[in-house]
Amino acid sequence: MARSVADWRAQKCLGEYRLPGCEVTTGCPSLSIAQAAERGAKSFILGFANSGGHLDERYLPHIIEAIESGMDVVSGLHDKLTNYPELVKKAEIAGVRLIDIRHPALRLSTGTGKKRTGKRLLTVGTDCSVGKMYTSLSLTQAMAEQGRQATFRATGQSGILVAGEGIPIDCVVADFISGAAESLSPDNDPAHWDIIEGQGSLFHPAFAGVSLGLLHGSQPDALAICHALNRSHMRGLPHVPQPSLSATINANLEAARLTNPDVYVAGIAVNTSAVKEDEATAWCRKTSDSFGLPCVDPVRHDVSVLLERL
Amino acid sequence: MARSVADWRAQKCLGEYRLPGCEVTTGCPSLSIAQAAERGAKSFILGFANSGGHLDERYLPHIIEAIESGMDVVSGLHDKLTNYPELVKKAEIAGVRLIDIRHPALRLSTGTGKKRTGKRLLTVGTDCSVGKMYTSLSLTQAMAEQGRQATFRATGQSGILVAGEGIPIDCVVADFISGAAESLSPDNDPAHWDIIEGQGSLFHPAFAGVSLGLLHGSQPDALAICHALNRSHMRGLPHVPQPSLSATINANLEAARLTNPDVYVAGIAVNTSAVKEDEATAWCRKTSDSFGLPCVDPVRHDVSVLLERL
Repeated sequence: MARSVADWRAQKCLGEYRLPGCEVTTGCPSLSIAQAAERGAKSFILGFANSGGHLDERYLPHIIEAIESGMDVVSGLHDKLTNYPELVKKAEIAGVRLIDIRHPALRLSTGTGKKRTGKRLLTVGTDCSVGKMYTSLSLTQAMAEQGRQATFRATGQSGILVAGEGIPIDCVVADFISGAAESLSPDNDPAHWDIIEGQGSLFHPAFAGVSLGLLHGSQPDALAICHALNRSHMRGLPHVPQPSLSATINANLEAARLTNPDVYVAGIAVNTSAVKEDEATAWCRKTSDSFGLPCVDPVRHDVSVLLERL
Repeated sequence: MARSVADWRAQKCLGEYRLPGCEVTTGCPSLSIAQAAERGAKSFILGFANSGGHLDERYLPHIIEAIESGMDVVSGLHDKLTNYPELVKKAEIAGVRLIDIRHPALRLSTGTGKKRTGKRLLTVGTDCSVGKMYTSLSLTQAMAEQGRQATFRATGQSGILVAGEGIPIDCVVADFISGAAESLSPDNDPAHWDIIEGQGSLFHPAFAGVSLGLLHGSQPDALAICHALNRSHMRGLPHVPQPSLSATINANLEAARLTNPDVYVAGIAVNTSAVKEDEATAWCRKTSDSFGLPCVDPVRHDVSVLLERL
C-alpha cells in the first residue's frame, strides 16, 4: 500500500516512517513523525494491509503521535480507526480526520447483469498480489498516452489512495459485490474504456467469491491476465498450489461469459521481479507464443502491446 | 421467510398478519396485532425478504403497533431495525427487543482452505429460491430418522429463524465469505454430517460471489443439486436465462474441487410445485435416469434416497 502511493503519486509523498524490523522501503526519505510534520506532511498513511485487515494495537502510539502532530490518518484496514474511542477523541482535539478508505459510504444495490454502454477491461490473476493494480494503472496511462479515453477504476485500498476514489470491493456486504462492481463502471461513451482493478483470484480459497462477483459486475469486454513468477503457492496458504495460466484464463473466460458472452483476453501481464531481465524477456516471449497473446512485464516492458487486441 | 417458520416450527406460530394486497398465506390463523398479543404472541416476525433487503417505510406503523403491544420484532433485512431511532426509542419504552438476524455479531477471519474433520453436504442450485433450505432441513431430518449424526447449518435469515442460529452469509463483509463458511461447520466427529444451506447460484449475476465463497468455505464432500420446474429466467432478472442442470452440476463440482478434490453429487432435489403429481414423478424418474443420480421433490417424495450415495 505504501509503495503504491510512492510509485504512482510520488509528487505527493514527503517521506516514509519505518518501525524497527521493517524490511521494505518505498525509497522515500526516512523521516520521524516530528520531521514529517515540520516539512508540512498533512496525512499519515498506514502503509500496510494484512490479510484480514486487522489493526495491531502496537501501532496506536505512532498513530497518536501523528494525530498530535496535526496529520489526518488514512487507513485501508477492515478495522476502523473510528472504532477506537481514544483515536476519535485525540483526533477531535487535534482537529484532524480519521479516514477509513476501505469502508464504502455509498448505498449499494444488488447486481442486475444488465449490459452497460462503453468498454471495460478487468485485470484478473492467478493469485492475490500479482500486479493487478499496477497493470491497471499502467494500461490506463498507456491509453491516455495514445489519446484514448480511459479511466482507472479502483477496487482496493491502495488503488483508492492513488485514484482518490473507488469502491473497496472486498469490504462491501457480500450480497452487493456485483452490484457495487456495476456501479463502479456506469454507462459511458461507446469508445471509453474503464480499466478496472481486479481483486484476488478465482483460485484463492479465501477470496474467490469477491473475484467472481467483481467479474460478473464488471461485465468486462477484455481481460488482462496477471501472474507472478516463481511463487510456489497461493498467498498466505502454503498448502494451496497456484493454478496454471491456462486454467486461470479458462475459468475467468467461462465465468465472465455469464454477463458478457463476447469477453476475450487482451493479454498476459507478468511480475517478473523474481528473475533477471533476459530470463524475464525469454519467459514472456515463450508464453506469448504458447498462448498466441501479448505477454509483458508492465514494469520492465512496454505495456501498450496489451492494448493491441482491444 | 414467513412460510419457513410456519412449515418447520409450526408449534411456535400463533398466527399470521397480512396486509391488504398480500396474495400468499402460511396457513396460520389470520390475526390482528392486538389479537396476537392477546393470545400471547411474543415476537413479530417481518416475514419477507426482498432482493436487496430494504425496509419499506410503509411497514413502520405496523412494526410500531407490534412493539407497543409488547412484542420483540425480528427482521431478516439488510436494513437494520436498530437504524431507525423511532423504533429504538419505542422498543426501549416498551421493554422489547429489535432483533436483526441478518447481521452477524461474531468476529470473522478470512478463509484458509484447510481440511476439517467430519463430513459436509452443501445444497447448491440453478437459481435463488429453488428449495435449498427446504432440502437441507429435509435431509437433516431424514438423517436423524436414520439415527445418523447430522446438524443443519443455516446461512440465511429464514434458516436462522428455524435453527435458532447460523451465519447470514450474504451479509458478511465480502472478504470473509469463505472464512465465515469455514467457521459455520467446524471440525467434528468423522461420522457427523453438517447439512449446509446453500445460497444463490453460481449462475446468478448478482449473487454468484456469495455462492462461490460459501462453496469454497464449506468444503463439501457431497452436493445436493436443487432446481425448480417451469421457470423461464433467473429470479428477478427476466433477461437472464436459467442454466441447465448439467451446467450447474459441472460448474459446482469444478469450483468445489479447489477445497475438496473428492467432492461428488449426492442427488437432485426438485421443487415440482408448478406441475401435477404424476408429471412431477415422471420428470424426476427421467432426470434420475439421465444423470444416473437420485432425483426427488423433497415435498412430494421420500428425500432419504438422496442419502444413499453419502
